[in-house]
Amino acid sequence: MNFCSHCGDAVDLAVPVGDDRARRVCSGCGAIHYENPRVVVGCVIEEGGKLLLCRRAIEPMVGRWTVPAGFLELEESLTQGAARETWEEACARVRVAAPLASFDLLHIGQVYTLFRASLAEPGFAAGPESLEVRLFEPEAIPWDELAFPVIDFALRLYLQDRASGRPNLHLGHLRWNGEGSRFRAANYELGDHRRVGLDPDGT
Amino acid sequence: MNFCSHCGDAVDLAVPVGDDRARRVCSGCGAIHYENPRVVVGCVIEEGGKLLLCRRAIEPMVGRWTVPAGFLELEESLTQGAARETWEEACARVRVAAPLASFDLLHIGQVYTLFRASLAEPGFAAGPESLEVRLFEPEAIPWDELAFPVIDFALRLYLQDRASGRPNLHLGHLRWNGEGSRFRAANYELGDHRRVGLDPDGT
Repeated sequence: MNFCSHCGDAVDLAVPVGDDRARRVCSGCGAIHYENPRVVVGCVIEEGGKLLLCRRAIEPMVGRWTVPAGFLELEESLTQGAARETWEEACARVRVAAPLASFDLLHIGQVYTLFRASLAEPGFAAGPESLEVRLFEPEAIPWDELAFPVIDFALRLYLQDRASGRPNLHLGHLRWNGEGSRFRAANYELGDHRRVGLDPDGT
Repeated sequence: MNFCSHCGDAVDLAVPVGDDRARRVCSGCGAIHYENPRVVVGCVIEEGGKLLLCRRAIEPMVGRWTVPAGFLELEESLTQGAARETWEEACARVRVAAPLASFDLLHIGQVYTLFRASLAEPGFAAGPESLEVRLFEPEAIPWDELAFPVIDFALRLYLQDRASGRPNLHLGHLRWNGEGSRFRAANYELGDHRRVGLDPDGT
């Protein structure tokens, strides 16, 4: 950010009165431009014991697999956003159930919120942002071809919960260990991981 | 938003290629400026059966009561943000437990996320943004002097859960009914309210 979006003057980094961290402050009108994390919403969809994944048609990570997810828009709720993203990327109508995870991706300022979901009506297909949409048996999940580390963590915890019969809402922050690719799950750690136990009847 | 924060040129409303809604697009460099909801994090703190509230020293709603809460910052997690806001507004160190609510405030683009919490060490006091901090017996909560409708909904659901012994994570969106004050809970409806049952041992 170089210019004020209100008046067009240059912005400087400064700590506003009563604040304790540097913000972008306009040198002309004095407007303070706060930067906050953005919310990503999406769905882990199970159908007949298999999980739905989309192969990305867009950057970043074209050709890699992920779950339907994207930025929450203004004037929609978390669950509406998760269902909309699924419709756009996988042409699937879903029943959004209990949350699976809310992970803070500290290095990129995202709160990644995934819900458990199932198909509300049969059928799915590649939307414009996907090359391909498929259901995978758990043992066939293409772990080495997933698009983002957060998806690796979320799918493994989903399968753990399923195996144990004890669903959780997983909270925590994902932190890159500072070495190697930022796109490899092995280079991340799930910090402050909290399992909030859910009533199995509600999931 | 009138000007591009990258290059300072004027922005126009336009639907970018491949998108389906109008965005602010720079007439000079072409940058697309997405606007997304912001996350508010806070705590409903119970101590000895009473709930902790802060009387606001800052606008909006100076003099009204609320729970410690504020905007999530970059490079902090949801639970870290909830604890930080509590420290800033109530000078209290808290143990953040299970989430209570994640409400979409559609009219103001906020995802309001509150956690259950308890004092990690004794003591609290008014921080610079509070006039006063007090513990209230449930029957003494100043419902008519609460700062924001979302707090009214959250506290009532907290007390309902407590009375039933069945904790939930409450999801839903708060919508103003279009009449009367935007600061009165009675003028709001909690839409698509979902109770995600939590394991009582984890809360």
